[in-house]
Amino acid sequence: MTSTQEIGKKSIEFHKKLRGTILLGRKMHKLSTKEIQLIYTPGVAAVSKEVYDHPEKKFTLTSKRNNVAIVTDGTRILGLGNIGPYAAMPVMEGKAILYKQYAGITAFPICLGTTDKDKIIDAIVAIEPSFGAINLEDIESPKVLDISKELGKKIPIPVFHDDRHGTSVVALAALLNASRVVKKSLATSKIIIAGAGSAGIGIAELLRFAGCKNMIVTDSSGAIYKGRRENMTRYKKEIAASTNQKRTRGSLEEVMVDADVFIGVSGIRNLATGEIISKMASNSIVFALTNPEPEINPVIAKKAGAKIVATGSYQFHNRVNNALVFPYLMRAILDHQISKIDVKILYAAAVAVANTIPRDKLHVNNIIPDVGNNRLQHNITHALKKFYKK
Amino acid sequence: MTSTQEIGKKSIEFHKKLRGTILLGRKMHKLSTKEIQLIYTPGVAAVSKEVYDHPEKKFTLTSKRNNVAIVTDGTRILGLGNIGPYAAMPVMEGKAILYKQYAGITAFPICLGTTDKDKIIDAIVAIEPSFGAINLEDIESPKVLDISKELGKKIPIPVFHDDRHGTSVVALAALLNASRVVKKSLATSKIIIAGAGSAGIGIAELLRFAGCKNMIVTDSSGAIYKGRRENMTRYKKEIAASTNQKRTRGSLEEVMVDADVFIGVSGIRNLATGEIISKMASNSIVFALTNPEPEINPVIAKKAGAKIVATGSYQFHNRVNNALVFPYLMRAILDHQISKIDVKILYAAAVAVANTIPRDKLHVNNIIPDVGNNRLQHNITHALKKFYKK
Repeated sequence: MTSTQEIGKKSIEFHKKLRGTILLGRKMHKLSTKEIQLIYTPGVAAVSKEVYDHPEKKFTLTSKRNNVAIVTDGTRILGLGNIGPYAAMPVMEGKAILYKQYAGITAFPICLGTTDKDKIIDAIVAIEPSFGAINLEDIESPKVLDISKELGKKIPIPVFHDDRHGTSVVALAALLNASRVVKKSLATSKIIIAGAGSAGIGIAELLRFAGCKNMIVTDSSGAIYKGRRENMTRYKKEIAASTNQKRTRGSLEEVMVDADVFIGVSGIRNLATGEIISKMASNSIVFALTNPEPEINPVIAKKAGAKIVATGSYQFHNRVNNALVFPYLMRAILDHQISKIDVKILYAAAVAVANTIPRDKLHVNNIIPDVGNNRLQHNITHALKKFYKK
Repeated sequence: MTSTQEIGKKSIEFHKKLRGTILLGRKMHKLSTKEIQLIYTPGVAAVSKEVYDHPEKKFTLTSKRNNVAIVTDGTRILGLGNIGPYAAMPVMEGKAILYKQYAGITAFPICLGTTDKDKIIDAIVAIEPSFGAINLEDIESPKVLDISKELGKKIPIPVFHDDRHGTSVVALAALLNASRVVKKSLATSKIIIAGAGSAGIGIAELLRFAGCKNMIVTDSSGAIYKGRRENMTRYKKEIAASTNQKRTRGSLEEVMVDADVFIGVSGIRNLATGEIISKMASNSIVFALTNPEPEINPVIAKKAGAKIVATGSYQFHNRVNNALVFPYLMRAILDHQISKIDVKILYAAAVAVANTIPRDKLHVNNIIPDVGNNRLQHNITHALKKFYKK
């Protein structure tokens, strides 16, 4: 297996050679003077007038519905933290290419030169007419949760928050299958979610909707419980109210005792040691989802007794990475003209992703489909049909 | 010849079939798991870190320098006026495709949901990190001139205002060649510019730099002269100070008597009648540049005595359309890392465009190269070399 460092070095060379990875294309094959008269003057004036006269035709005569703005302020890029909008660009470009590759979507990186909440909202509201959806990406929490909520009131297009929505879908999908493999009920499994940022909050919310009743979310101050005073936000209070019914206190290490499931979305590599994992219940499930380097190396986790291990990386088995959700889910959202993304939609998508692997093919190293699985789009689109124009 | 109406109808069908014309592409041919590891996690984290550690590498490791935002607020779309950001989209998409086709540039339509000057400026400042240049497009004047000026102080990338800069370059290029054909000196020719919006102001400014001393600009109130009180702006005052030395007053029809050159950038179709054109001097030059329908039909202008007639349309000879300038000029600006666009740069570009047609090939129906002329890029890039990093 190639090390992350080696891949990183190759990646820099690759980007240097290409000078960035995205490039605009066009939908028509031929572009002679005849086509130019149709896509530009004089023909295009009639198209503009048609959209002006019939506003709903913006969805059929322009690319609006197929365009997604990948918006970041560079404050929480991968596990790298606040590295600013310029350094965020390569990640957003890569994401744009995956959107195109797997779902035919034109996504464009919008890396913002401001980290101010209101200015971010204003910028997104301003650019909305060009896009069919907004993808909020790698913006620090809880600011991004406020932004998402505020945008829901201000713009008519769906706001997809991949760190929250995409991660929760892929995590639940993998967890549904993993629990089948180890034959445990999710409703009663003790689940520890390490990280109370966008991903942790999204996962807790979706797992609760899916029927998980025994969950504890931890952050840098340990278990989050109702009544905790330090290091709380409005969103952590919501978590405290809906998880950890026993109000368990303690460090990650302490609450991990007898846990059935560990889901790491902490942004901290090597957060979990083999010793911590060894304290979990038998047949434990370990999802170390932080990128580019997980909370624990899968080899160490296995040695410490984990039955099923997954990471977000392409280097290991069980790639629980948003990439296998966001392009397909966005395609379905756009095609079904869904304007608000809620937990029911995410749940339906997660079940569809999980069921993409036939039950008899499930095993410890095969709990989640590959990103290129050619049934993913059909399954997700089909599952979301009932939310048409919601 | 196909009528504008017929082309418009075909254009609507074309856009309906394609559902908009742009589609994101990528620079690498192959995209297997290996390449995905380089353009996305885990490899891309190293690229982001590299840009963070060496900020100047944003120009070599990301697509920033090749990305152009085509920004409009939809207030002055072609000759259609204020039709809003959604109806503006088809024009911006067409423009993006020309940028790609002729210069390999990734241009993206940013149609803004606001017409407020300060909000437009804020939005552009916010999205700047993703782009190598801004192309202001079809925003009403004089607001757009203020925006352009303000952005020059606020962002480090060039602000190209096509209606002003692009139109002035193509108009001067055509005029240089037309004056050679009719053997008149531009310095002494009487030149009437109909329209004091962005295009009229840009042309007056560039022609003055090129040595034209006998110019009158007209607007809906007639000739602009120093001391005029009605319907003035700060920019029209600048025009009044630098043109029309005799302070001639009167309607377009009145000032057109004995004119050598008419340049229509009024946004008003059929503004000029055959009768008006017939009052011009012998060997007159008529550029009716409003799109999609010009100030006068070329056939009528010729009948009325015009020696050389040009329009912005692909339907006639002498296509004096920005499209043959903006992609190539932008490519040269980006490649030479030019951060401010000034009149010297525009003049150099205009001369390069004009000289793309060999002198012995010039004639009344061949004063400007075709948009696809394969020497345009080389000539403009070469001419702008001296402005490197300006």
